[in-house]
Amino acid sequence: MLTNDLHIALRPLLASYDPQQIVVVTGQDVNACRPEIAALGYPVLTMQGGEENKSIVAVQHIWDFLLEHNITRRGLLICFGGGIVTDLGGFAASTYKRGLNYINIPTTLLAMVDASTGGKTGFNYAGLKNCIGSFYVPVETVICPPLLDTLSAEQLLSGYAEMLKTALLDGSELFNALLQYDLDTMPVADLAPLIERCLAVKERIVQSDPHEQGLRKALNLGHTVGHALEELGLQPSAISHQPSENRQSSNRQLLHGYAVLYGLIAELYLSVVRLGMSREPLQQLTQLMLHYYGRPQCKCSDREHLIALMEQDKKNERTAEINCTLIHSIGQPAINQVISRSEMNEALDYLFSL
Amino acid sequence: MLTNDLHIALRPLLASYDPQQIVVVTGQDVNACRPEIAALGYPVLTMQGGEENKSIVAVQHIWDFLLEHNITRRGLLICFGGGIVTDLGGFAASTYKRGLNYINIPTTLLAMVDASTGGKTGFNYAGLKNCIGSFYVPVETVICPPLLDTLSAEQLLSGYAEMLKTALLDGSELFNALLQYDLDTMPVADLAPLIERCLAVKERIVQSDPHEQGLRKALNLGHTVGHALEELGLQPSAISHQPSENRQSSNRQLLHGYAVLYGLIAELYLSVVRLGMSREPLQQLTQLMLHYYGRPQCKCSDREHLIALMEQDKKNERTAEINCTLIHSIGQPAINQVISRSEMNEALDYLFSL
Repeated sequence: MLTNDLHIALRPLLASYDPQQIVVVTGQDVNACRPEIAALGYPVLTMQGGEENKSIVAVQHIWDFLLEHNITRRGLLICFGGGIVTDLGGFAASTYKRGLNYINIPTTLLAMVDASTGGKTGFNYAGLKNCIGSFYVPVETVICPPLLDTLSAEQLLSGYAEMLKTALLDGSELFNALLQYDLDTMPVADLAPLIERCLAVKERIVQSDPHEQGLRKALNLGHTVGHALEELGLQPSAISHQPSENRQSSNRQLLHGYAVLYGLIAELYLSVVRLGMSREPLQQLTQLMLHYYGRPQCKCSDREHLIALMEQDKKNERTAEINCTLIHSIGQPAINQVISRSEMNEALDYLFSL
Repeated sequence: MLTNDLHIALRPLLASYDPQQIVVVTGQDVNACRPEIAALGYPVLTMQGGEENKSIVAVQHIWDFLLEHNITRRGLLICFGGGIVTDLGGFAASTYKRGLNYINIPTTLLAMVDASTGGKTGFNYAGLKNCIGSFYVPVETVICPPLLDTLSAEQLLSGYAEMLKTALLDGSELFNALLQYDLDTMPVADLAPLIERCLAVKERIVQSDPHEQGLRKALNLGHTVGHALEELGLQPSAISHQPSENRQSSNRQLLHGYAVLYGLIAELYLSVVRLGMSREPLQQLTQLMLHYYGRPQCKCSDREHLIALMEQDKKNERTAEINCTLIHSIGQPAINQVISRSEMNEALDYLFSL
């Protein structure tokens, strides 16, 4: 549900639970929302941020927290945070006593338009992103755009990339509406109707195929290359984007939406070459990248590793193949496209030479 | 499916999988079935036996094994063993890349009539039995009674107790047929039709309520007390049954079916006191226990701990209550019976004074 007042929206949702049976999990990085969380009045577990902490250890912290508060199967877990919190909390809920109800309250644009809906939960394992997980739908996802007010431009850009992906699956009207959004000032008020439209598109796709047997794979557009870039970022010598300010750490984590934007560019390039897609959307995303996201950083020595990571992707139906979603044109996805190593190398050449 | 020839039964089931994408998980204690497993010709992971090894560490071994063999979402895990193997393997399959197909081939009577069907998976956590788990149904369960030929009398008795529970939920006809089974010689051939009838009863109950929102709780008859006895067995100073031969270790694990038989006796006692059930089934189970299972061993100092474990049971809807399934009469279960501490103490007095 979309709301501008979190507490009014939550009241009827929480009324059917014993207040002693409600707990909250959140992230270290959700500091700006502390007053909102404290106002709920339930016990809070704060998780460490970062993809490297999206681990089985973090899941165990949540199970321990639920046990410590004697949460029964009739209890409720509220996941109040970004995508890492909703993915970890959702997984812990799906497996605690074989299934506990949970509510997602996403605090980032990325989590609002992607992780918090659709029921995908999980954590990183053996260096592979979301390698372990479940399909387990929250009883409600509460989208409250005013929570976005304190986000950095980078975090908004990260979510915006997932919205672009959704629009590429839906049609030119939504894609053009997104391109008209003012990325220089990024007004949150103008985002709300765009979020609502993107969520409707995702919901339609997920409902047609909740367990990703077929059509839902369309949502992976940009993610075969994007996940590999992120997984490389989980390694010690991390790839990163170049933010406009000076980099503070050489291991700075690549934000998911940045990885998705780079992935979209590589996969739209493949869509042009293989499916004859018009070059215009590729050029539009390339311009956005150069103006707002910065180029991806990748060493030549990483190239083989990137390809190997794509070959291990969850989406693959066979070992050692690369499986992508591409598009014939905006709104016309083509799932299960098997890409050769030489085709992928050509797409990466395009991306890394921009 | 019920078969007398494992390989003939498996052939059509496995035909739709890439042979490079099939792996097997089994248990150390399944030595007698080694030739059957080797004949399959797939990579095998052997798990350590014992409830204390039914842990998150064991689940991680299975995830690692699947990754090592590059198993994709289109692969297959065969769980060939007792209930610990099928519970752990089923959980690993349910969460690996958000869901991998699996087949159960139970090798114990207990796993045949209980763990291998119905889709409950899980592992012990924080000293609580099956505290973490999922509902995830195998694509097939292959029941092959000739695999029982090498089981010990104790292992057969363990499974037989779950069959008695199933019959108590179904009706007098099945219950009496079970009581006529010759426990002195335990012929495996006579078990097959009884296994088939018990599986049909379980399937009917599970299909009416796959996620245990209501009716499926009937299958927990005997398990509120039974699980607490087992959980006590997970502690250093373990409760145990007295087998007819001399005990070899003071920490000998209480077999699940033995715990269930003791639990049935306590819970049928409560059924007599609270719901006016006839005393006859209670007396029949008591006689069986004294003749074949031996008395449970429990120190007075364990009594408080047992009650506390029951209050933490997954089945509870509220904190610090004891929730049991009882029966009005054979075939008439009564779920969600909230039992007071003094009632439970009275039932335990009956059980431990036999």
